[in-house]
Amino acid sequence: MRIVYLNGDYVPRTAAKISVFDRGLLFSDAVYEVVSVIDGRLIDMERHVTRLERSLGELSINAFADWSGIARKLVAKNGLQEGLVYLQVSRGVMEDRDYRWPAPGTAPTIFAFAQSRDLIENPLAGRGMRIITRPDLRWQRCDIKTTQLLYASLMKMEAVAAGVDDVWMTEGDLVTEGTSQNAHIITRDGVLISHQLDRAILPGVTRIEALAQAKAMGLAVEERAFSIDEAKQAAEAFISSSTLLIMPVVEIDGHQIGDGRPGNLTGRIRQAYIAAVHAGPSIRG
Amino acid sequence: MRIVYLNGDYVPRTAAKISVFDRGLLFSDAVYEVVSVIDGRLIDMERHVTRLERSLGELSINAFADWSGIARKLVAKNGLQEGLVYLQVSRGVMEDRDYRWPAPGTAPTIFAFAQSRDLIENPLAGRGMRIITRPDLRWQRCDIKTTQLLYASLMKMEAVAAGVDDVWMTEGDLVTEGTSQNAHIITRDGVLISHQLDRAILPGVTRIEALAQAKAMGLAVEERAFSIDEAKQAAEAFISSSTLLIMPVVEIDGHQIGDGRPGNLTGRIRQAYIAAVHAGPSIRG
Repeated sequence: MRIVYLNGDYVPRTAAKISVFDRGLLFSDAVYEVVSVIDGRLIDMERHVTRLERSLGELSINAFADWSGIARKLVAKNGLQEGLVYLQVSRGVMEDRDYRWPAPGTAPTIFAFAQSRDLIENPLAGRGMRIITRPDLRWQRCDIKTTQLLYASLMKMEAVAAGVDDVWMTEGDLVTEGTSQNAHIITRDGVLISHQLDRAILPGVTRIEALAQAKAMGLAVEERAFSIDEAKQAAEAFISSSTLLIMPVVEIDGHQIGDGRPGNLTGRIRQAYIAAVHAGPSIRG
Repeated sequence: MRIVYLNGDYVPRTAAKISVFDRGLLFSDAVYEVVSVIDGRLIDMERHVTRLERSLGELSINAFADWSGIARKLVAKNGLQEGLVYLQVSRGVMEDRDYRWPAPGTAPTIFAFAQSRDLIENPLAGRGMRIITRPDLRWQRCDIKTTQLLYASLMKMEAVAAGVDDVWMTEGDLVTEGTSQNAHIITRDGVLISHQLDRAILPGVTRIEALAQAKAMGLAVEERAFSIDEAKQAAEAFISSSTLLIMPVVEIDGHQIGDGRPGNLTGRIRQAYIAAVHAGPSIRG
C-alpha cells in the first residue's frame, strides 16, 4: 500500500485527496521539489530544502515543516530503495475563489509521495538522448520551481511525437534548458558551457554537482547561454536532473553530436556523480 | 450547504476532493471557465462552452460533458441569483507522475462550483478602477484559458500593495490585458481600441459584446495593441470581464484618464450590456 503524506498525516494513496478549492489547483499557486532516492537514501536533500524555501519566499507562501523528516519517513514507509520523493506546497484552500491571496494564517497545503524508479540502471545512459529544439514559451520566472509545468509537458509530448527523448527550449537562438533538466555542452576545446543562473532556468541541484565534477576533472566551466549551433558543433552534450542524474545527449535537431555516441567526459562526470552519491556524505540525506 | 459538481456527482462542498495525483495539481494541466449568473440565469453560456472546447482542443484533452446542464444544475441547487459558476477540466489522475500524458482513455477530472457575488451593483462602476502597469511575464499562450494563473495572482497582489484595483500587463510599451480582464481605450476621436485576438490575450466573452455595443453606438473599433502612453492620453478607458462586466478605468500609473471620472461612453456600453443581459435572449443561458 502506497503511503502519501498530506498535511501532517501519512495516509493510504486512495485517501490522499485535497479540496477542489485548493489554490494549487485553481491558480497554480504552488511550488514543489523532486528529490532522488538511491540506496534508500535521499540525495542532496539539504540543497532541495534550500531551493524549496527560496521558491516559497519568492511567492511569500508561509509554510514550515520538517521537509527532510517527511521525505525520510516516506522513504521508510514505502520501503523505497531507488526512485524519488515528490513534495508540493500550495498557498492553501480558499473557498471564495479570488486572485488575491487568502488571509494571513491560512494553512498551506503540503503533500508528498514516493515513487519507485530505476535511476542508475537507465538504458538511456548507454544510448544517449536525442533532442529537438522548440521556442521557450514558459513564463519568465523559471527560476522558481512552480507547478506551472503545462508547457514543459506539452514539449515532452512534442518529443514523443517526434520519436526523440526530449526538447531543449530556446529563446531566439539560445538554449535555455530541457523540459525538466538543465542543458550543458562541452566544446572541442574542453570547455563546459552551461546557462548562467538567472530567471530563464531552474537552478538545478544536480547541475551544481555536475559542474563541480567537471571542474575537478580539469574542465574549464563557462556559465553562459549557448546557441543551438554551438550545441551542434560541440564535442559532447549532456543534461543534469535529479532523477536522470547526468545523461548524455547524442543528437540535436537531427544533427549528430561528436561521433553520435555518449561522450567520454560526460560518462566520467556521470560515473563520478554516481560514485559520490554512493560514497560521499556531502550529498547524502 | 454549498453543492459542488465533481465527476458526475453533486456533492457537499466538504466532500469535493480530488486526488493529489491529479494532473491539474501537479502540472497545471487544466483549463477552466467562469460564467456569470444574473437573474438566476447563465450569461453567454454558449460562448463559454465554445471557448472551453477550444481550450481543451488546443491541449488535446478529451473531455465531454453537458457543460450547460452542469452549470444550470449548480445554479439551481445553490439557489444562485447573482454570481458565477466556475468550471474546471484537467487531464485526469496519473499515479506515476510523468510529464508525458497518461494513456488514452484516462478519465479527465471535471469539477464546477457556484459562487455568490454582486455583479451589477458594484461600487467600482461608480468610482472607476485605478490601474498600474507591469511587464507581462506570463507564458506565451494566454489565448488558452489554463489554470496557470500564478503571475496574474501575483500582479493582483502588486495592485493591492500599491493601493489600486488592478494591473495592466505590458509587452514592451504595449498593453496586453489585465489580470483577468481585457483592456480597452476610447480615443479623443471616438475610436475604441482593443488588443487584437492573438496568443497574448484571452479571447474574452464579454469583450465580444462590449465591442458589439460600441459599434452599435457608432464608435469605430480598431483591434490592435495600444501603448501605455496612448492609454494615458485616451478620453476613456475600461475593462471587460465576465464578472466585472464593463468597468471604467479612471487612472493609469497615477495618470488621470479624461477628467478622472468614469467615461460617458463607457457608462453607456455598461448600461447597454446590462440591459442586453436582462432582456436579450441572445446572451442568456
